[in-house]
Amino acid sequence: MDNLPKCQANYTALTPLTFLLRAAACYANRTSVIHEGTRFTWSQTYDRCLRLANSLRSLNLATNNVVSVLAPNIPAMYEMHFAVPMAGAVLNTINTRLDAKNIATILRHSEAKIFFVDYEFVPKARDALRLLMDNNKNNPTNQQHNTFSHSLPLVIVIDDINSPTGIRLGELEYEQMIHHGNPNYVPETIQDEWSPIALNYTSGTTSEPKGVVYSHRGAYLSTLSLILGWEMGGEPVYLWTLPMFHCNGWTFTWGVAARGGTNVCLRSTLACDIYRNIALHKVTHMCCAPIVFNIVLEAKASERRELKHTVEILTGGAPPPASLLEQIESLGFHVTHAYGLTEATGPALVCEWQKMWNGLPKKEQAQLKARQGVSVVTMADVDVKNLDTMESVPRDGKTMGEIVLKGSGIMMGYFKDPVGTSRAFGNGWFKTGDVGVVHPDGYLEIKDRSKDVIISGGENISSVEIESLLYRHPRVLEAAVVAMPHPRWGESPCVFVSLKKNNLNHSLKNDVTEAQIIAYCRKNLPHFMVPKMVKFMEELPKTSTGKIQKFELRVMAKAFVVSENNSNNKSSQVSQNNNIGVGGYNNSEQILAVSRL
Amino acid sequence: MDNLPKCQANYTALTPLTFLLRAAACYANRTSVIHEGTRFTWSQTYDRCLRLANSLRSLNLATNNVVSVLAPNIPAMYEMHFAVPMAGAVLNTINTRLDAKNIATILRHSEAKIFFVDYEFVPKARDALRLLMDNNKNNPTNQQHNTFSHSLPLVIVIDDINSPTGIRLGELEYEQMIHHGNPNYVPETIQDEWSPIALNYTSGTTSEPKGVVYSHRGAYLSTLSLILGWEMGGEPVYLWTLPMFHCNGWTFTWGVAARGGTNVCLRSTLACDIYRNIALHKVTHMCCAPIVFNIVLEAKASERRELKHTVEILTGGAPPPASLLEQIESLGFHVTHAYGLTEATGPALVCEWQKMWNGLPKKEQAQLKARQGVSVVTMADVDVKNLDTMESVPRDGKTMGEIVLKGSGIMMGYFKDPVGTSRAFGNGWFKTGDVGVVHPDGYLEIKDRSKDVIISGGENISSVEIESLLYRHPRVLEAAVVAMPHPRWGESPCVFVSLKKNNLNHSLKNDVTEAQIIAYCRKNLPHFMVPKMVKFMEELPKTSTGKIQKFELRVMAKAFVVSENNSNNKSSQVSQNNNIGVGGYNNSEQILAVSRL
Repeated sequence: MDNLPKCQANYTALTPLTFLLRAAACYANRTSVIHEGTRFTWSQTYDRCLRLANSLRSLNLATNNVVSVLAPNIPAMYEMHFAVPMAGAVLNTINTRLDAKNIATILRHSEAKIFFVDYEFVPKARDALRLLMDNNKNNPTNQQHNTFSHSLPLVIVIDDINSPTGIRLGELEYEQMIHHGNPNYVPETIQDEWSPIALNYTSGTTSEPKGVVYSHRGAYLSTLSLILGWEMGGEPVYLWTLPMFHCNGWTFTWGVAARGGTNVCLRSTLACDIYRNIALHKVTHMCCAPIVFNIVLEAKASERRELKHTVEILTGGAPPPASLLEQIESLGFHVTHAYGLTEATGPALVCEWQKMWNGLPKKEQAQLKARQGVSVVTMADVDVKNLDTMESVPRDGKTMGEIVLKGSGIMMGYFKDPVGTSRAFGNGWFKTGDVGVVHPDGYLEIKDRSKDVIISGGENISSVEIESLLYRHPRVLEAAVVAMPHPRWGESPCVFVSLKKNNLNHSLKNDVTEAQIIAYCRKNLPHFMVPKMVKFMEELPKTSTGKIQKFELRVMAKAFVVSENNSNNKSSQVSQNNNIGVGGYNNSEQILAVSRL
Repeated sequence: MDNLPKCQANYTALTPLTFLLRAAACYANRTSVIHEGTRFTWSQTYDRCLRLANSLRSLNLATNNVVSVLAPNIPAMYEMHFAVPMAGAVLNTINTRLDAKNIATILRHSEAKIFFVDYEFVPKARDALRLLMDNNKNNPTNQQHNTFSHSLPLVIVIDDINSPTGIRLGELEYEQMIHHGNPNYVPETIQDEWSPIALNYTSGTTSEPKGVVYSHRGAYLSTLSLILGWEMGGEPVYLWTLPMFHCNGWTFTWGVAARGGTNVCLRSTLACDIYRNIALHKVTHMCCAPIVFNIVLEAKASERRELKHTVEILTGGAPPPASLLEQIESLGFHVTHAYGLTEATGPALVCEWQKMWNGLPKKEQAQLKARQGVSVVTMADVDVKNLDTMESVPRDGKTMGEIVLKGSGIMMGYFKDPVGTSRAFGNGWFKTGDVGVVHPDGYLEIKDRSKDVIISGGENISSVEIESLLYRHPRVLEAAVVAMPHPRWGESPCVFVSLKKNNLNHSLKNDVTEAQIIAYCRKNLPHFMVPKMVKFMEELPKTSTGKIQKFELRVMAKAFVVSENNSNNKSSQVSQNNNIGVGGYNNSEQILAVSRL
C-alpha cells in the first residue's frame, strides 16, 4: 500500500504561492489591497505579481538568489511576498528602523542581487550602499573569498505619487517593472517544498543579527496555523499595523490571500491613520505589538473614530499589561495574545480563549490572557524542559524550564551559520532561549528569557515577574530588570524604569523615589526577589523593533555594585560605584542619552 | 541556502496523530467524547488510544497491515481513528449498510488482519466471515496466489452495556484490549508522511467498489482545509450525524481533535436522538447528507426541541434543494454546502458564503448555496476542463467541462488497482468524473456526473438540471433522470420519480400523470431538454450510502424506446417497447420491486 507512487495530481509542494493562485481563481473580483486611493482586486494582484516575477527573471535573477526590500507596509511590499518567490528567488524584507550600517551588513551577508527601496528610505539605502561599496574597496582580498565580497545589488526604487522628486537611486522603478512584465509568465514551479522562500534577519536583542531561512513548506503551514489559531474567518479586512518585515507580517501577508481578505496598507502607524482606516474600510483584524495600544489610546479626540464593530487584535512581543488590555478592549478592540519568534515563523503559541473564562473578573481574565498559551496546530510539539535532563517540567505553573519547539513551521536554519544552527537545534528540538512554566491547564507562561534569569543566592529570579509588578505601579511607564553583581548573593535585580509622561515637568528624582519603588516591591514580592537598585530614565533603550535593549542595561548594571551592608534586604539604600567600566554610565544624564539611541 | 539540512526539530511528518497529542497537551481536561452516559476527556482519549495501539501491536500487527471496523458512530470508532495508525496500521472503516457479500469482498481485498465489529453488526459480520471462509475453501488454488487468498482476520467485538448477551464472535473484546494495553506505549513514529493512514472503499454508484488509500499527509492537510473552509472555531461541540465510515467523517474525526472540541456520538440518526443531543450538549456543528434534513424536519412534535442557538450544518452528497434549505434554516440550523468525493478525502469544494449575498431574496440565496463553490485551501488547484484539449472552460456559468483537482489532499491511489489509479490520474490532474461549469465569480457548479450527461441530437443535456426542476414540483419527492435510447436523437431524458408520501393512498397512476410532468418540464426547460418518458416508483433504488442508483435506472431505461412519431417534441405520448432486455423491467410492479433493493 505504501508503494503507491506520487504524481502531480496528488503530491504538490506546499507553498503560500497557491494561496494567491486560489484567491485569483475563487475571489477574483474581491478587493485584495487598499492603500489610500489605490485599490486592487485579487485578479489584479495576481496579474501584477506575474508581471513583476517575469521582470525579475528578465534581470537574470537565478533560483534562490536573494531580493532585499526596504519599504513600509505598501502594496509593493505586499506583492513582493508572492512575486519574488514566483520568480524562484528568496525574499529578504529589511527592518526599516535599522541604520545604514546594519542594512549594509544584511545586504552583504545575504548577497542580495536586487534591492527594492521605497522612496522614503532612499537616503538610508544610499548610505548603506556606500558602506557596502567602501567595504568592497577596503577589502580587496575579499574579492577572492565569496563569503565576504559582494558586488552591489541592482537597486529598484518604489516610487509613489506622494514622493518628492529627485530621490531616484538607479534607473529602475517598481511600477515600470510591473508595466513591462509579461502577465502570461508561468511562475517557477516549486519542485521541493523544502526550499527557501524568505530570509529574515533577527533584530538581535541578545546577539548579532542572524539570517533566519523559511521554507515554502514552513511558511505554508505556519500561515494556516495562525488563521486557525486566531480563528480568522472569511472576508477579513486586515489593517497592516504590524510591519510586514516582522516574520513576513507573522505570515498574514500570505494568510490574507489564503482567506481572500482585503489588505489595508499603512505607510506609518499614526493614530489618525489607524482610526481613519478602521472606520473607512470596516477593518476586522490587525496585528501589533502592545506599543501600538499606546498609540491608539493616546490619540487626540479629533483623531479618534468610534468603532462600530469589534476589531480583532493579535498581539505579541510582550504580554499585554492588564490595564492596557482593559483600556483597549473598552474601545471595541478584542485582543488575542500570541508568542513567537522569528525562528518559528512568527507566533508558535496562541493564548486561545476558553469560553469558561468569560465569567471571571476582568483582572483574572487579563492574567489568563497574558499567558503565552497553547501551541498552534501545525506545531508538532511544544514543551518546557530541563535542558540538562531533557525532562519535561511538571504542569504546576511553578517549575521553570526552557521552552522548546518542534514542527515543520520551524526555520530551515540560520543562513551561512552552521554553528549557530546546530546550537539552536538539539535533541530533536528548537531551543527558544525562553524560560517558562506549564500551568495545570496546559497553557504555557514565559517567565523570562533564559539570559534574563537572575540567579541570586542560588535562587532563580524571573525578571519578567518583577517587571510585571512594576508595570502595575501607577506611575511606571516602562520597566526592565536585569542582573547586577552583588557581593554576597552573586547577582541581584537592578531596576530601570521610566515614568509616565503627564508628570514630566516634575523632577525625575522628586517624582517617585527609589526607596518608594523598592518598598512597593517588598510589599508585593518574596524578599529574595526585591531589587536592590532602581534607576530612572526618560525612556528605556530599545532595539529598532521596539524591544527593550536589556543588553545595554546589563552593561550599565554591571557597573553598579550594591554595598554589602545592604545585602540583608533590610535597607533600600544603595550606593553607586564610580568605577564605571566600558560602556557603563555614571550619571543620569548619560543614562538619558543612552535611552535615545 | 537550500542545503540547510532537515532535522527532527524542523521537519516532522504531517499526520493527524499530532492533533491528538496536542489535544491531550493543550485541552487535557476538556470533554473529548460523549456517548449517552459515557464521557471522556482529551487526556483520557489519548490514554485509551495509547493502550489500544499497544494491544494491537501485541497481536503481531505489522506496519501497514489493515484493521477493518464495522461499527456505528460510537467512541470506539472514534478512538480507532487514532489508535490504529498509532500502531502503524491502516484503518479501514466499512459502511455498515453494506451486505455480508460486500463486506466479505472488502475484507478479502484489503487483506484485513484484524476486524473490529460492533455488537449490533455481529450477525452481518458472521455472515461475511462465513462467505470469506467458503471462498477460501472453494478456491484452494488461491492459497498460492496472495491476491485472492485470505486467511480470516482476527475478530474483536465492541461490546456495550446495552448489548444483548451471547452475541460474542471470537474471544477478544474492545474494552479488554484497552484495559490490558500499556498507557506508556510509545506510538509508532510516522517516518514518512507519504504512508497510508486509511483505506476507504467507495460505495460505487457507477462501478465496482475501489479501495481509496489516504496518506498521513493528505489526511492532515484535508483536515485543516475543512476546519478552515467551514470556519469551525474553538471548542466546537460536534454531533456525529455523518457516519465516520464516510471518508473518515469528512476528516472531522481528526478535525475535532485539532480544534479540541467535543464529539457527541450517535448510534443511529433518529430524530429524537438528534434533537435531544443538540439540546443537552449544546451542539454547534454537524455534517450530514440532505436526507438527514428530512429526518429532522419530519420529527414528531414530541421529539423536537427548540434550538436555543445556531447549529452549523455542513452538507454534501447532493445540492440541498431550496425548499429543504429554507425549512431547515427556519428551525435555527445554518447550512453550508460542500462537494467532494472519497478520492479527495471528502469535501474538495466548499460553497463559501459571501456577505454581500445576505441581502438577496431567499430563493436566490438558495440557488447560490446549491452551487458547489470554491476549492478548499489546501487543494493546489481546481479547474473545469475540456478533457480532450485540457483547456479550461470559460467562466461563463454555461460551458460544461469535467471537474479536475490537484493537491496533496487527493488520495494516494486505489489499492491493488494500478490501472484504475492511472485512469483516475492524467495530465497532472485527478479526474472527478463530474461535469460542471464555472460561474463568472469563480464558483463551480456541477451539472452532472460525466456518465449522467445525456447527449441528445448533439446537445449535452444535464440530468441534474432536469432533476432540480422536478424537485421543485410540489408533488415530487425524489427524481432521477437518465438517458434512454431515442431513434432520432440518439438519447433522450427518461425521468424516474417517486411522489410525496401523504398521498400514498391514491393510485400512483391517478395522482400526477406522466403528461402533467412532461408539460411541467416543457413550461420550464428548453425544448431539447424535455423528457420523453416519466416512470413513477414508490422509492428510487439507492446505494447503501443513500445515493440514487442511476446504474439500475439506466438498465431499465435502456429497455424503453420512444416511438419515432413523438420525437418532434410536439407530443408527450410515449409508448413502451415490450422487448425488454436483460435486467429490464416491463411493468410497474417490477419497478417497485427494484426500488426496494
